[in-house]
Amino acid sequence: MSMPQARAACPYGTHRVIEPPGVLPQPAWRLDNDTSAIFDNEVLIDVQALNVDAASFTQMKEAAHGDADGVAELILATVAQRGKLHNPVTGSGGMLIGRVAAIGPALAGRPDLAVGDHIATLVSLSLTPLRIDRIHAVHLDQDRVDLSGQAVLFESGLYARLPDDIPEGMALAILDVAGAPAQTARLVKPGDTVVVVGGGGKSGTLCIHEARLRAGPDGCVIGVSPFEQDCQRMRELGWVNHALQVDASDAVAMLAAVSAGTQGRLADVVINCVNQPHTEMGSILVARPGGCVYFFSMATSFTAATLGAEGLGKDVALLMGNGYVPGHAEYALSLLRTSPRLRQLFEVRYA
Amino acid sequence: MSMPQARAACPYGTHRVIEPPGVLPQPAWRLDNDTSAIFDNEVLIDVQALNVDAASFTQMKEAAHGDADGVAELILATVAQRGKLHNPVTGSGGMLIGRVAAIGPALAGRPDLAVGDHIATLVSLSLTPLRIDRIHAVHLDQDRVDLSGQAVLFESGLYARLPDDIPEGMALAILDVAGAPAQTARLVKPGDTVVVVGGGGKSGTLCIHEARLRAGPDGCVIGVSPFEQDCQRMRELGWVNHALQVDASDAVAMLAAVSAGTQGRLADVVINCVNQPHTEMGSILVARPGGCVYFFSMATSFTAATLGAEGLGKDVALLMGNGYVPGHAEYALSLLRTSPRLRQLFEVRYA
Repeated sequence: MSMPQARAACPYGTHRVIEPPGVLPQPAWRLDNDTSAIFDNEVLIDVQALNVDAASFTQMKEAAHGDADGVAELILATVAQRGKLHNPVTGSGGMLIGRVAAIGPALAGRPDLAVGDHIATLVSLSLTPLRIDRIHAVHLDQDRVDLSGQAVLFESGLYARLPDDIPEGMALAILDVAGAPAQTARLVKPGDTVVVVGGGGKSGTLCIHEARLRAGPDGCVIGVSPFEQDCQRMRELGWVNHALQVDASDAVAMLAAVSAGTQGRLADVVINCVNQPHTEMGSILVARPGGCVYFFSMATSFTAATLGAEGLGKDVALLMGNGYVPGHAEYALSLLRTSPRLRQLFEVRYA
Repeated sequence: MSMPQARAACPYGTHRVIEPPGVLPQPAWRLDNDTSAIFDNEVLIDVQALNVDAASFTQMKEAAHGDADGVAELILATVAQRGKLHNPVTGSGGMLIGRVAAIGPALAGRPDLAVGDHIATLVSLSLTPLRIDRIHAVHLDQDRVDLSGQAVLFESGLYARLPDDIPEGMALAILDVAGAPAQTARLVKPGDTVVVVGGGGKSGTLCIHEARLRAGPDGCVIGVSPFEQDCQRMRELGWVNHALQVDASDAVAMLAAVSAGTQGRLADVVINCVNQPHTEMGSILVARPGGCVYFFSMATSFTAATLGAEGLGKDVALLMGNGYVPGHAEYALSLLRTSPRLRQLFEVRYA
């Protein structure tokens, strides 16, 4: 495929930015999603499905009053407007799966990539040029959309080859949140008390599983969810010391519950995985002085977290969840091989 | 002073929340500002002046068409309605100065507080019960209001005693950003390469000063500003190895400039103090793999930072600036005593 000489290709994809010019693809309003020709350092993908970010999918479901066709229309409208599935309300994206259709000559030497490979992109849809030809199905309960179309992966773009021994849906479901267990593994030390806010969800469950491994028998792992059913499941899975049924947006109730569960010591590490707003204060309140709060949730407000901690006079480290850790995809997939209970859960709930 | 037995006093002040019940004072719509009696764990303050948050003051000035009496009326109306100066439009507050009028018996043991002490509150006016008796003057150019009235500081509420050897205006100016040098002191190790984005501003200058102290002679401190005058001043102050004139919202230009200044090694620690949006990516791009990026700027977007790092495939720690570190106020004031050049700068520019 021949490229216009004038358009220099950038490892981060700035050559695809239309508006405003000179910025990176993620903050850009609009990308060039023309896939009739790729640049030397791009990978072209025949897209099969999108796994939409939970915050974005929830927003679209609500805007469409729970109607699948309405969600499909919103997706098409966003991609038509922005050249990427970058939700203008939530600012978030998701990931995609497909097969490698073409590899630019500058990347021909990559040992782990060949045309025809079945891959999932691990960079957000909010920065991925996407062209949709047809939406086949919107799976309202899975945040998933089956479609035909093409997408572009930049030179810096992360991806994972989908393994043969794990069903696609299950692999995707865990790759979508692959950063969560990998970051938890870094944060939690033996003996730590760990609170996972939103412990009933997918990333929350992985954080709880990982926290249990890392905190060990002397540690204390506490899952929080407003739903009785989530708490029941957390107890059945057996990785938590306590499952607390509390609405995390009720900061005062959070403090009371975690305080009671830890004899007032509170948590060394708080991990927030709730895809609902207004849970920053509740998360900060239950961290001990000198502890840390890790915000994975895309519903996190920077000002609510920073002004909240200051207003409470709490000396806690406030970390923003970085979805990328080297080796995170392989690590997440390995969990499904080593933990039959986790694999079963993913089979039943997320695949 | 006697308290009604039924009203239990909370360290975070929930006992003062009228509407809606059960939330913390900052998100509350209305607080009880009755200061005729204080609770056991409260501090009563005779207020002398308010330093209104810049966003709030600007909004009120515009709504009052630049009229001081009009601003005074808006302030009285907000406090009458909410029991606190919590601007309903901007959501922001400010801070106050005054003298300690009474200390609840539960706090009587505090070694650093006595009735009559001249203090500044370091928690936002958006969560501070305030009663105004009379507004004496509205200083339109200083975001400042002189008044008579009383305010309540909760048990968790932060404050600083105003020193005798530093003029009030100068003390307030540095207390406003006291978290910046204290957090920098924690982050920077000897020999580190540190980039301070927005190095020409007030908090940026303090971060550069602190980074120089901590990184030491083997370290490399780089200040970034889009303005020639800022870069000139950074060089004159003598705490930077390089002052780079770059617009941090231009991520691509940032990478080129810092790469050149560090022979491609990039920064161990990046500190973002820019009160302008869209500088997240530029800050993340110039951190080395395994480094960290500290966001002090209130213009930071959570999703831009987290999705940005993931999109770039960068394994960096993303920290949100917590304005509170134990001892930060005393530490910030001490800098004005130990660094004559810093004091002179504050005299000329910020006091």
